Amino acid sequence: MTEVVREVRDARRIFREIRAQGHSLGLVPTMGALHSGHLSLIERARAENASVAVSIFVNPTQYDDPADLESYPRTFEEDLAKCEAAGVNIMLWPDSHEIYPDDYRFRVTESEFSERLEGAHRRGHFDGVMTVVLKLLNIVRPDRAYFGEKDWQQFVLVRDMAEAFFLDTEIVPCPLVREEDGLAMSSRNANLTAEERRIAPRFHEILFGGGTTDEIRERLAEAEFDVDYVERRNDRVLAAVRLGKVRLIDNVRE
Amino acid sequence: MTEVVREVRDARRIFREIRAQGHSLGLVPTMGALHSGHLSLIERARAENASVAVSIFVNPTQYDDPADLESYPRTFEEDLAKCEAAGVNIMLWPDSHEIYPDDYRFRVTESEFSERLEGAHRRGHFDGVMTVVLKLLNIVRPDRAYFGEKDWQQFVLVRDMAEAFFLDTEIVPCPLVREEDGLAMSSRNANLTAEERRIAPRFHEILFGGGTTDEIRERLAEAEFDVDYVERRNDRVLAAVRLGKVRLIDNVRE
Repeated sequence: MTEVVREVRDARRIFREIRAQGHSLGLVPTMGALHSGHLSLIERARAENASVAVSIFVNPTQYDDPADLESYPRTFEEDLAKCEAAGVNIMLWPDSHEIYPDDYRFRVTESEFSERLEGAHRRGHFDGVMTVVLKLLNIVRPDRAYFGEKDWQQFVLVRDMAEAFFLDTEIVPCPLVREEDGLAMSSRNANLTAEERRIAPRFHEILFGGGTTDEIRERLAEAEFDVDYVERRNDRVLAAVRLGKVRLIDNVRE
Repeated sequence: MTEVVREVRDARRIFREIRAQGHSLGLVPTMGALHSGHLSLIERARAENASVAVSIFVNPTQYDDPADLESYPRTFEEDLAKCEAAGVNIMLWPDSHEIYPDDYRFRVTESEFSERLEGAHRRGHFDGVMTVVLKLLNIVRPDRAYFGEKDWQQFVLVRDMAEAFFLDTEIVPCPLVREEDGLAMSSRNANLTAEERRIAPRFHEILFGGGTTDEIRERLAEAEFDVDYVERRNDRVLAAVRLGKVRLIDNVRE
């Protein structure tokens, strides 16, 4: 049975009890609309911890576009069923006022990497991400928290934040999971039209094809994507594109 | 015996062991140059906790004026002797690179109250304060942390930050302590010339005298203070003045 917890006060009590029993605890923070990518994080968390919590919170502060926030899929009943089937112990499903009693007066910022890539195209995005992650980690205080490498920049910033603020949680990166045709799994894929869904796999195919970032950008444009960015960073090529009303991101290791 | 700890890695291990033993832990964060005001915080912490830690860290990120940072008194040997005498268990005395391995890339900000009063006169001051307090609280993870009401705005912001980020530490306010002649105790008082020290007590006398903020400001100017601000907030009158090269703050309850 997955216990659903809606209030932060209850959550803090429940997680305090789990820690007092000396059980290891893993957290998988999500915005819901769970797919196989999330399930792979949950599976990993199950393998490494005695108890597993999943948080479902569509975090308003990481959206600069209200339409994007509005259209993000909400599928709570299906999510709960998937968590039950996956053996999740606790689902934290708070309202926004539970997480932001301060109305987002207090926030975490970062002055370099957060301004680039996703941060350059979504103003304030990573302030919202880091702030909500810090709050969730403090509510749950897990031994480990699991982040997908699809949001690679997010993972790096959260990992570095945890280090800078001396958090006791280990930030664990998990490999990107793809659909059978190779499209990176994303809750946003549900918003693609049939025609867009047919085109979408060209995105990762072009990234895997290699070349200079200019060449990649050109090929993406030819394939009818609106390109936000294509950049090399460390051993990766990272890219974001728009396809109709849907924004897709992906990254491949070279 | 007060154990002096210089490295964050050691500190985290030591405080983890204390918590594992189930001992309550109090933290008094300071910038050193300990005076009776600090000692009253330490005494309170001793009364309420099994173990007491004092941190000494002149936090560079809360200074907008390098000369002010430079002139802040450093009196480590005397501070250690005072901690020994006061029964402090652990003194955390880190270097700046221990606290800022990230070079202050990650920080905590607040969008309203931190911009006023002290924040209006010391740019970025409270970002630095909140960031270092969050780091210290995460390193030590005390049950209670003690803050003097002399820095009333600082106390309010730290208390609200702890609430917003769901920290497990109780933020405890402690009454302002005054010299025999009523001057609010401050490490900066040591930087006053004899003549300035003679004038300084007029500061609190005028605040206690009441009146409109304009009247108070006028009286302070007549007494040779350069007034940064005088403001009513909740049940308090808060003020900051400059006397020669020294900046003094005070607040009185009405």
